[in-house]
Amino acid sequence: MNKHKIINDPIYGFIRLNDPLLFDLLEHPLVQRLREIRQLGMSYLVYPGATHSRLAHALGAMHLMQQVINILRDKGIDIPHPTGTSACAAILLHDVGHGPFSHALEHLVGGPVSHEYWTRMMMEHLNASSGGVLSEAIDIFEGAHPLPFLHQLVSSQLDVDRLDYLNRDSFFTGVSEGIVGWDRLIQMMHVHQGQLVVEEKGIYSVEKFLLARRLMYWQVYQHKTVLSAEFLMRHIVERARELLSGGHKLTGSDALILLLKQKEAATQERRGDLLTAYAETDDHDFITAVKEWSRSSDWILLTLCQNLLNRKLNRVLLTIEKPYPSRVEQIRNRICDSYGISAGESRYFLGTGSIVNHALHTDREPIYILGKNRSVKEITEASQNPHLKALTGSVEKHYLYAPKDFL
Amino acid sequence: MNKHKIINDPIYGFIRLNDPLLFDLLEHPLVQRLREIRQLGMSYLVYPGATHSRLAHALGAMHLMQQVINILRDKGIDIPHPTGTSACAAILLHDVGHGPFSHALEHLVGGPVSHEYWTRMMMEHLNASSGGVLSEAIDIFEGAHPLPFLHQLVSSQLDVDRLDYLNRDSFFTGVSEGIVGWDRLIQMMHVHQGQLVVEEKGIYSVEKFLLARRLMYWQVYQHKTVLSAEFLMRHIVERARELLSGGHKLTGSDALILLLKQKEAATQERRGDLLTAYAETDDHDFITAVKEWSRSSDWILLTLCQNLLNRKLNRVLLTIEKPYPSRVEQIRNRICDSYGISAGESRYFLGTGSIVNHALHTDREPIYILGKNRSVKEITEASQNPHLKALTGSVEKHYLYAPKDFL
Amino acid sequence: MNKHKIINDPIYGFIRLNDPLLFDLLEHPLVQRLREIRQLGMSYLVYPGATHSRLAHALGAMHLMQQVINILRDKGIDIPHPTGTSACAAILLHDVGHGPFSHALEHLVGGPVSHEYWTRMMMEHLNASSGGVLSEAIDIFEGAHPLPFLHQLVSSQLDVDRLDYLNRDSFFTGVSEGIVGWDRLIQMMHVHQGQLVVEEKGIYSVEKFLLARRLMYWQVYQHKTVLSAEFLMRHIVERARELLSGGHKLTGSDALILLLKQKEAATQERRGDLLTAYAETDDHDFITAVKEWSRSSDWILLTLCQNLLNRKLNRVLLTIEKPYPSRVEQIRNRICDSYGISAGESRYFLGTGSIVNHALHTDREPIYILGKNRSVKEITEASQNPHLKALTGSVEKHYLYAPKDFL
Amino acid sequence: MNKHKIINDPIYGFIRLNDPLLFDLLEHPLVQRLREIRQLGMSYLVYPGATHSRLAHALGAMHLMQQVINILRDKGIDIPHPTGTSACAAILLHDVGHGPFSHALEHLVGGPVSHEYWTRMMMEHLNASSGGVLSEAIDIFEGAHPLPFLHQLVSSQLDVDRLDYLNRDSFFTGVSEGIVGWDRLIQMMHVHQGQLVVEEKGIYSVEKFLLARRLMYWQVYQHKTVLSAEFLMRHIVERARELLSGGHKLTGSDALILLLKQKEAATQERRGDLLTAYAETDDHDFITAVKEWSRSSDWILLTLCQNLLNRKLNRVLLTIEKPYPSRVEQIRNRICDSYGISAGESRYFLGTGSIVNHALHTDREPIYILGKNRSVKEITEASQNPHLKALTGSVEKHYLYAPKDFL
Repeated sequence: MNKHKIINDPIYGFIRLNDPLLFDLLEHPLVQRLREIRQLGMSYLVYPGATHSRLAHALGAMHLMQQVINILRDKGIDIPHPTGTSACAAILLHDVGHGPFSHALEHLVGGPVSHEYWTRMMMEHLNASSGGVLSEAIDIFEGAHPLPFLHQLVSSQLDVDRLDYLNRDSFFTGVSEGIVGWDRLIQMMHVHQGQLVVEEKGIYSVEKFLLARRLMYWQVYQHKTVLSAEFLMRHIVERARELLSGGHKLTGSDALILLLKQKEAATQERRGDLLTAYAETDDHDFITAVKEWSRSSDWILLTLCQNLLNRKLNRVLLTIEKPYPSRVEQIRNRICDSYGISAGESRYFLGTGSIVNHALHTDREPIYILGKNRSVKEITEASQNPHLKALTGSVEKHYLYAPKDFL
Repeated sequence: MNKHKIINDPIYGFIRLNDPLLFDLLEHPLVQRLREIRQLGMSYLVYPGATHSRLAHALGAMHLMQQVINILRDKGIDIPHPTGTSACAAILLHDVGHGPFSHALEHLVGGPVSHEYWTRMMMEHLNASSGGVLSEAIDIFEGAHPLPFLHQLVSSQLDVDRLDYLNRDSFFTGVSEGIVGWDRLIQMMHVHQGQLVVEEKGIYSVEKFLLARRLMYWQVYQHKTVLSAEFLMRHIVERARELLSGGHKLTGSDALILLLKQKEAATQERRGDLLTAYAETDDHDFITAVKEWSRSSDWILLTLCQNLLNRKLNRVLLTIEKPYPSRVEQIRNRICDSYGISAGESRYFLGTGSIVNHALHTDREPIYILGKNRSVKEITEASQNPHLKALTGSVEKHYLYAPKDFL
Repeated sequence: MNKHKIINDPIYGFIRLNDPLLFDLLEHPLVQRLREIRQLGMSYLVYPGATHSRLAHALGAMHLMQQVINILRDKGIDIPHPTGTSACAAILLHDVGHGPFSHALEHLVGGPVSHEYWTRMMMEHLNASSGGVLSEAIDIFEGAHPLPFLHQLVSSQLDVDRLDYLNRDSFFTGVSEGIVGWDRLIQMMHVHQGQLVVEEKGIYSVEKFLLARRLMYWQVYQHKTVLSAEFLMRHIVERARELLSGGHKLTGSDALILLLKQKEAATQERRGDLLTAYAETDDHDFITAVKEWSRSSDWILLTLCQNLLNRKLNRVLLTIEKPYPSRVEQIRNRICDSYGISAGESRYFLGTGSIVNHALHTDREPIYILGKNRSVKEITEASQNPHLKALTGSVEKHYLYAPKDFL
Repeated sequence: MNKHKIINDPIYGFIRLNDPLLFDLLEHPLVQRLREIRQLGMSYLVYPGATHSRLAHALGAMHLMQQVINILRDKGIDIPHPTGTSACAAILLHDVGHGPFSHALEHLVGGPVSHEYWTRMMMEHLNASSGGVLSEAIDIFEGAHPLPFLHQLVSSQLDVDRLDYLNRDSFFTGVSEGIVGWDRLIQMMHVHQGQLVVEEKGIYSVEKFLLARRLMYWQVYQHKTVLSAEFLMRHIVERARELLSGGHKLTGSDALILLLKQKEAATQERRGDLLTAYAETDDHDFITAVKEWSRSSDWILLTLCQNLLNRKLNRVLLTIEKPYPSRVEQIRNRICDSYGISAGESRYFLGTGSIVNHALHTDREPIYILGKNRSVKEITEASQNPHLKALTGSVEKHYLYAPKDFL
């Protein structure tokens, strides 16, 4: 960024850092690292344009936050400058804990360690090392701030995170179904009794947003080829972890190997080391390792890595009904026979499970509509449109993941 | 891509592979490798959106070639289907030899080995291994085809390569000055006596194209921060090569190390190995190595790598006049004193030279305008616009590259 | 157009007339007249950008038809050149019978005379005067052509008419909710057993299209201010017709007055005169007349015209339930008292009725989805998405139209 | 607009009226009248999309003014709210005096009465009738305000008027050569010693803006067909004025006829009547009159009007050299013979003259560049680019306007 405070963005034109705190955060290596992490993981295999980084998304979401804050101020909502900056800091950092390839490699480290875990740890680290300037931002992020709408702007069913990523992912993939009228939507935001609401005339924009989100799930986020590549990446990580835990040696950057050897969520005393290693690890480490491991002495790791590099991806079948267990076992047996591997090892090549596409969860953080008479209703109640109610249902699909030749 | 023959593109909407040859080429690892090479090298440090790959550009240029061929056919120019496919193959492969970070690391290997060298070698390799199906494409690429306009579409001052990269780089950086009315321009293309010409009414579009190109040079391709980062990358490569040639050990992927150890352009018998290594090397190898080398035992390599990772970039001063040699020497002495390095080693931190911005070379591959009376004129003659003539002059600027504290 | 065969269009870039027949049609005064008729009637009162003409829409729809025909040909569907041209002619002329301000003033002439009536009459006239060159186009328009998909492209629930107008109206109003991924949609079109179908992977695009259509109804086509202005325009026409039939003299262009005096659909012998008058009447005649009539000696006509010119529009209340008749009568009485008019005359100031918003009619011209197994299903059956089914229901709203002071 | 304070705009998304004064101005009939005046006169004959109104342009320029004012305030320039509103009012009204079809019919009324004359008269009228609330706006408009940069934003070589119209005309015509990076340009604006300046890094954007302006002149504003249509419209007005002054009766709206009968700029006592008539006259009156006059008893008027309606336009030849007088006389003689008209009357069918395309006037209201060292230079001095200097020269072309058959 070279100390520029105005940053070019393909979507919004210009993004401004309107407070030194934001500039300093952006300069921090933990944030700069997001330059080297692709927002959409392996989706660029299907959508060649989708190489955009987590950093670009974080900046975009921050830009939207600035816009919303200005709009709310114009409507008479009092948001002091430092609080506005804290909200911007919270959204700039909201995904700072993502690992390589975003969601695809969330579980580099053993135990149930999500990117939110790392995000919190990094926020605390940044706060501690800067004399507490991020305390209010952390409160907003955690939902502990006295102005609840700020948290809702960071994380709810209609937050600036979603607004930016739908736009951005749509823009870079070229999938126009995801385009969202973000400028219209944020113009219609308001605050009522401390809660984020949307003015009644914005109800159609919300509806379009919900559909756009659902369509982006089908077409991009849960695209079968993307799912297949991401399953494969996870299997590579799992196999590498298994080999390392068995004493096998693997080449790779020190930080990556340290993380892969980690058995569970960090104990208090190990947190510092782990954080350092995690902060040094990005997409490049992983791909470079995969290229090295494609010549591994372990046949399974070698095969998985070669498959990824040559885009020889498994097929993913999506069905409404669960696949018959007997069918799955039959496939498993044929894979074991054909590859000469054990039933246990077959999990690297075969999998089942389900994916769920929620356009709207009515049970958590509802979207509220502010009527002209100042009454507030949950959106599916506010709308007379049967179509909207239909969007609240979740759609679950079962997948069967296996090499093409065995399906 | 997963066998899809329609590919989403953020700029053109859809790109179609209209011949199996193009599909097979795209699937080839040498072409797929371009996914992992950023089109604009380090420019994403300044323009966070500019993470687009060489592959996306190659596909885009191929799409424009298809469009132009259809337009020329509509105007009665006979281009047989296989020849059209060869032209598409030629442009799809025109940059296949680019190394990591595109122009930034063109000289990984010793000797004057440009990306064009690698491109030719790869084209020949692909042709040899596929029974000669690319012979016509190579003729077009080399300018040896009986229809000269096809070569001009691949490589001239108004080719589909430039049309796509100006558009694409403008789109992803968000620098709107580079937007080119490509649809209008290609509609105005025609062929006269075998040469590519532009119909008279397209003269304004050509003028805008030439200016857009010049402005993209100033704002993106020769942006001072981008230049600085690219100089730094080259210095890292040079230092690594120097250390390796002196017997120093460096970590890094086998392929990268093999290339860095290479002293000169490949002898005939080594070409195969080198090609294999080159084909395995992409942006990831380099960045992963830089992260490792930032803990090198060599102070110079360590410093250069840390500077890149922390974006502690040298300043680049651009001036019309050459900097005074005495000033440069003064700076050199201060750097040597301060860093405790020799005058010879100071070349990793200090440099001078010049960059040239040509909007139009009137001396090579001119742009021809086809008048309504079927006469053909070089564009600066065809135009009554003094402004256009001014674009033909080149603008040279001298640079002085040094750490900020020493300027 | 001045004999140019390439026309600039803000949405598609360039539109080409690829057959002399289309060029001649475009040059005909009956088609040129569409330049002077606004596509969205009075909507420019709400959306200042929405001044686009019927001609621009007709050209845009013709452009899409050309694109679809090329796509279908690429997929192996045989469409002879003259038939393709006929399909383009049919869509170029599909709205040629629209009167001033499009739908707003459809009933200038007495009797149930829709714009489709005029369109047919004009097509027959054009065909008769050009030796029958439009016979195939008329067959396509009427659904009498042996290739049924051509008619479906002109007029069905997923035709190029709708694709263009949603795009165009969205573009010019700035209401981004109506943007449709037309390029993706037409790429997915195919023909199966003579019927227009959409390939399975296009199902999300269809869904987005259906929602976009519904949202454009709520936000633009049935916007309350637009409805109010259109009701007012109709009342002006009705009052003018009433005055003229009572022998009152009104200024206005000869053609406009002739049409307004007409009592019913034209008898065979009068058709020629009426067609001539209709063909000479456009938006300008009406607005110029309204300005003159705003100084009329008839208080009702004067008031209606002044209200339109000063944008003193009635309020339109939209409700799910029908308004109580007693309420309506109460308002009527107050209007009569206040304005000093009779109950019969109050119809110029007060009205009730309903508007219906259909996103999808499952009962007529269904949208068919072509599965990968070559099976064809109606879209709501093909989709596993409850959301889509919800779009098939129609939404009816009742309106009450009255001066603001009386509500 | 129906009391909405947020207006949809196809270019900027939303335009807000951030002060009641602006809302009241917009509601005023003098401003509303601009809805019915096409910004680009007859250009929609060549560019069917170019039907946008003067009102849309006025709103767009006002929106840009708001943006610039906010940017300048962020940079520490003190602009009190009422002054900002006055600047917005000044630009909202800057073209309020345009007559039908904008520049095409500027001289409806006899004498040298430009649209600026009417604009001033209307501003004074609005100010007088609203207790002087527009006094500051008028000072800004006239260049009499103590903050000179405000006038420069309204009217200089880099004002928001030009920024909006280049963008808007480019957008609606579809001529992409005119696209201007307005967001970038206004971000770079600053004030130095009371004068409007552009920061150094914005110099490329200014250069692109100047070229875009020049190209829009060639492609749109001085397009030969557009020129021809506008000459024809002026001839119609001249002929109508001549006939009326000779006692001939012509149909037409009262206001239009009153204006056409006017012999010279209004005397003080007549100003009120004229203003009323002018304010009632828009595009519709003129086109409706032309349709009536196409059946005139005067052969010249009838022919001119039919030519316009049937787009039977004269050819316009543009040349660097003046056409030979002898050639012009020869054509004149042939026209007189053929049409049976006198040499004096031939001026309605034949004309010569010149058009000038200035990209930049260095002699008036220069564009100033603010260097990093706070020095200010005129742009052609600030730039090292020979290309820019070339843009300062004006290009003059001579035209010969005559029926096609006589050329």
